[in-house]
Amino acid sequence: MTKAAVFGTGSWGTTFGMILSGAGTRTTLWGRRAEVVEAIDRRHENPGYLPGAVLPDTLRATTDPAEALDGADFVVFAVPAQTLRFELSRWKADLPPDAVLVSLMKGIELGTTKRMSEVICEVAEVPQERVAVVSGPNLAGEIVRGQPAATVVACTDERAMERLQAACYLPPWFRPYTNPDVVGVELGGAIKNVIALAVGISAGMGLGDNVGAMLMTRGLAEISRLGEVLGADPHTFAGLAGMGDLVATCTSPLSRNRTFGENLGRGMTLAEVIAATKQTAEGVKSCESVLELARKHDVEMPITEVVVAVVHDAMPPSEAAVLLMSRTPKAERYGL
Amino acid sequence: MTKAAVFGTGSWGTTFGMILSGAGTRTTLWGRRAEVVEAIDRRHENPGYLPGAVLPDTLRATTDPAEALDGADFVVFAVPAQTLRFELSRWKADLPPDAVLVSLMKGIELGTTKRMSEVICEVAEVPQERVAVVSGPNLAGEIVRGQPAATVVACTDERAMERLQAACYLPPWFRPYTNPDVVGVELGGAIKNVIALAVGISAGMGLGDNVGAMLMTRGLAEISRLGEVLGADPHTFAGLAGMGDLVATCTSPLSRNRTFGENLGRGMTLAEVIAATKQTAEGVKSCESVLELARKHDVEMPITEVVVAVVHDAMPPSEAAVLLMSRTPKAERYGL
Repeated sequence: MTKAAVFGTGSWGTTFGMILSGAGTRTTLWGRRAEVVEAIDRRHENPGYLPGAVLPDTLRATTDPAEALDGADFVVFAVPAQTLRFELSRWKADLPPDAVLVSLMKGIELGTTKRMSEVICEVAEVPQERVAVVSGPNLAGEIVRGQPAATVVACTDERAMERLQAACYLPPWFRPYTNPDVVGVELGGAIKNVIALAVGISAGMGLGDNVGAMLMTRGLAEISRLGEVLGADPHTFAGLAGMGDLVATCTSPLSRNRTFGENLGRGMTLAEVIAATKQTAEGVKSCESVLELARKHDVEMPITEVVVAVVHDAMPPSEAAVLLMSRTPKAERYGL
Repeated sequence: MTKAAVFGTGSWGTTFGMILSGAGTRTTLWGRRAEVVEAIDRRHENPGYLPGAVLPDTLRATTDPAEALDGADFVVFAVPAQTLRFELSRWKADLPPDAVLVSLMKGIELGTTKRMSEVICEVAEVPQERVAVVSGPNLAGEIVRGQPAATVVACTDERAMERLQAACYLPPWFRPYTNPDVVGVELGGAIKNVIALAVGISAGMGLGDNVGAMLMTRGLAEISRLGEVLGADPHTFAGLAGMGDLVATCTSPLSRNRTFGENLGRGMTLAEVIAATKQTAEGVKSCESVLELARKHDVEMPITEVVVAVVHDAMPPSEAAVLLMSRTPKAERYGL
């Protein structure tokens, strides 16, 4: 029987654990907080992150990393992006030697501008083909209510990729596609949050669906330009981990990044939005590292640039809109 | 001074006339109904299609095709797709010999399965390089209220394409990109309505943003598969005339196709929806010709297939959803 460990008991880690369990993979979650672990393991619930959801009896949880890792074929990471390096260094000794390490995380490491799978390779000292990524339009709050969703499983080792696909294929509820392009799948998930901020800002300004669609499309074009320079297959961005995740994040009222942007678009300052929402949206942190990456590689990312200007340099959103619309008329496809 | 004639006084024809006028192109609309033409020409309004909008004084209108066509550099067609062949045959004699003929129409001709630009070439007996297409996320009701939008201008003749781009570039309001791929730009606009029906059906069933994003993404993948077989550049579908228009149409409450699908998803029959909405959505007609095209060229279009089955063969939406989610797990990119 296939066995999996999932590190992280947030909404997506727990939900992906449910999917693995449901697909017949023996799954144990690791969590830091005893009360959360006990709620999952004994009462089959995670009220802090997934209120109302009933978890399967077969889904176990523990606070002991070694117990979770024992005999695992797949080790899945769903911890906050900026804590991965530190956490993983503590788990490293217990990682089963042949396990495939899987990232569910969507972020770029601050300072190093590394993707999560790069951090995993580096810290766990494993070759690239041992690391997989799962990313797609997967709002956990919808999946956990039994709504169907599809995702992308990426790994450079084809056999590992297909084994992971089988471990989480649960028709008609959850449908994983495969794609060998780890870099593209991962960048799509990390950068979409910046574009969701832009779409939120425009919605907050009262702009309509033409502008939203334009920002998503041209946003995906700039993600693709950067991605191709970093070695991604540009076709990946037209898929579920690119366009799909971007569209879900930019249109869902459940998206923190979109909501954060909306408040900025209505004229609130960064400090006011943070005070109002009590948390920072991921795109607020990562827009600067994305822009840093783009400049390092000489890639034009006009939407990311104005997001950084509005979020961090107090540029009025109306000025940002005029800037974007008044660039020299161009061919639609350039820089690719 | 550049001169344009626009045939059709519906919401998009009138709005595109406003854009051309605003960009300094001398523009005359042709309309069949004297009262609409008079409202536009004398009172600078089109209350039937654009209630509340104030049209520019410089935008003229006439019921006389020869008057509209006199000296026109661009002849723009914005009539219902299925009437183009007949209407154009009557205007043909007066077309200026060097004018670029521009299609704003989004449809596939029933019976012939021809694109609108193909119908124009055939009926007007002009070579392909004399025909251009304008398509993108351009909900007229938003543009006419002064909201910004971007679009794609496509023509195989680069100089004609750039002249048309200049004729409708109006920063910061309206931003046209160029793309030489006429086939792709045109197909994106025509097929998106079928996918909007699918997204509407799923929303009507109470499904969330993950499913909507999945249908848009996999819908675009099947449009791209068909497009590539028909000679389109697959990258076009990642652009404004592909993804952009699709996203705007699938997410806007102003979209007739989405609304039509929502009613089907709630359990109404085709007859009930038609009775309730008093008009048929374009995708209802074109889904069958799209599927005919796909079968002729042996292209898999699973979403289009279930849309045809739900709309025309009374398949219950819940059965369609299970069918789509239970297909064999696949690589994300196939058949391209």
